[in-house]
Amino acid sequence: MKYGFGIDLGGTTVKLAYFDETGTMLDKWEIPTVTENSGKQILPDIAAAIRGYLTAHAIPDSDILGLGIGVPGPVDRQGVVNKCINLGWGVFNIAQELSGLTGFPVVAGNDANVAAMGEFWKGGGKGCRNMVMATLGTGVGGGIVIENNLLFGAHGSGAEIGHMVLNPQETIPCNCGKCGCVEQYCSATGIARLGREALAASDEGSTLRTVEKLDAKAIFDAGKAGDKLALQVLDRYYNYLGQFLGSLCSVINPEVVVLGGGVCKAGQILLDGVEPYFHKYVFHAASNVRFTIATLGNDAGAYGAFKLALDKFL
Amino acid sequence: MKYGFGIDLGGTTVKLAYFDETGTMLDKWEIPTVTENSGKQILPDIAAAIRGYLTAHAIPDSDILGLGIGVPGPVDRQGVVNKCINLGWGVFNIAQELSGLTGFPVVAGNDANVAAMGEFWKGGGKGCRNMVMATLGTGVGGGIVIENNLLFGAHGSGAEIGHMVLNPQETIPCNCGKCGCVEQYCSATGIARLGREALAASDEGSTLRTVEKLDAKAIFDAGKAGDKLALQVLDRYYNYLGQFLGSLCSVINPEVVVLGGGVCKAGQILLDGVEPYFHKYVFHAASNVRFTIATLGNDAGAYGAFKLALDKFL
Repeated sequence: MKYGFGIDLGGTTVKLAYFDETGTMLDKWEIPTVTENSGKQILPDIAAAIRGYLTAHAIPDSDILGLGIGVPGPVDRQGVVNKCINLGWGVFNIAQELSGLTGFPVVAGNDANVAAMGEFWKGGGKGCRNMVMATLGTGVGGGIVIENNLLFGAHGSGAEIGHMVLNPQETIPCNCGKCGCVEQYCSATGIARLGREALAASDEGSTLRTVEKLDAKAIFDAGKAGDKLALQVLDRYYNYLGQFLGSLCSVINPEVVVLGGGVCKAGQILLDGVEPYFHKYVFHAASNVRFTIATLGNDAGAYGAFKLALDKFL
Repeated sequence: MKYGFGIDLGGTTVKLAYFDETGTMLDKWEIPTVTENSGKQILPDIAAAIRGYLTAHAIPDSDILGLGIGVPGPVDRQGVVNKCINLGWGVFNIAQELSGLTGFPVVAGNDANVAAMGEFWKGGGKGCRNMVMATLGTGVGGGIVIENNLLFGAHGSGAEIGHMVLNPQETIPCNCGKCGCVEQYCSATGIARLGREALAASDEGSTLRTVEKLDAKAIFDAGKAGDKLALQVLDRYYNYLGQFLGSLCSVINPEVVVLGGGVCKAGQILLDGVEPYFHKYVFHAASNVRFTIATLGNDAGAYGAFKLALDKFL
């Protein structure tokens, strides 16, 4: 039996996990991400954590097949990071550098893509060959798996599905600088915005007028309790989400769409809401798609990172 | 040296070509597509054409690595055709059936996808690893290549890029039954429609008011001659095309976009028109894309079909 590590590198913490080759997570822990000094300490810290773990548990190097790591920025198939603004990183080959520091082979990918690979392998996409995952959080990220392979893209920027154009008439800019991106409507932030717009556009009574914080959770809760305005907001939201996923699945034709991120805490109501709109917008021959909610939570990145190592080094 | 055949099966003719393993097309010819009787004669006719060619040229079976075929309908990775309405075909495994009839291994794909593979291999996408091809003809089709592999999709319906949603407000239906598809705006038919709308919406003088046939060619020709209204129509067209390709490339992140189909006869003016809009709509990290025009014309399908055979059987 061989073993390895899956690493999910975030802007504040690094999540590390130790796996056996069947994909059982045997251990997991976190270390802080030290972004000072252009993030120069990050990889040495990760290497020290891994070497320390092996020493503490008396695991020989020969047991280790390799490491996978998800990184918050574009990473190409060769392991070249093309700037991680959160970490202060420029352009360099993270796979080579972390391999030099640890003595193990390393494979790297974009964090959102890598988390999608985790869900594909052990979560909502288990048993499929082609998957679209959309992470509906503060923004909209995700990943695409085609015949068991993660889509990297030519420059490590594949599957930036949150920046497909949803509304070319939009005049308010997205965080990316463009206007009308999927992320402006389909994120948790987007639901809140739709809620504010609906409250401003009418005098209709609504429990949303008195909530402490008008966020996605409040809107879903009000909708579940039958609040009419909240239901209208959610209907608009489902329409946007269905348009986005219908367009995307007409291109990719996956077996499964996995929805992740904070918005998914809404549960089945979200799936029931989006599916009719999805069928309005998807090309008929690509409509045979199962919708499901992500199951791995914050562990998805570590699972996916280790899976990349398993696929490449076992 | 091994050899093989690339076959492009269309609704009226079957194009056949004989290649050596380096991809040199040594011969090509056509036979009619007999669609009567639910298209039962099509595969026997193709098999007879190939067996006859080998006999006539005294080529031994041992020289032949296999056949590739592009089919006007969805075909999955295993060779299962899921209805070809033009041919009267239902659901069956074309690869198995044509292999049984010829005695050679067969690989099949959707015709538009297979033509894209041809352009990727020997045409506008030569030398790249990731490509988007959009065929702007009567409709909009195309194909996507990711790390040298054609995107098939879970049910053989991948890369139906002409049916991404471009305008959710559209009320006129597309041929597919949905409303607001890329194909309704970005095809040659779409340009003509934009032209008719522009003429109806104003009294402005334009040479387009007196052309015999208001089609894409007439509008490009008028635009090249400086006709103001034609230039406005083309500007709207470039905007739609840029939105479509910007969205698509934010997902796929290719090195190259190859434009094919009748609209491409417009030449460099088309590329010059679409690129600024593409950059308005594409996610910045995926913006490093070369635009080019398809070069193989009607031979693209045969090249791509043979390439599938080469990748699978050599």
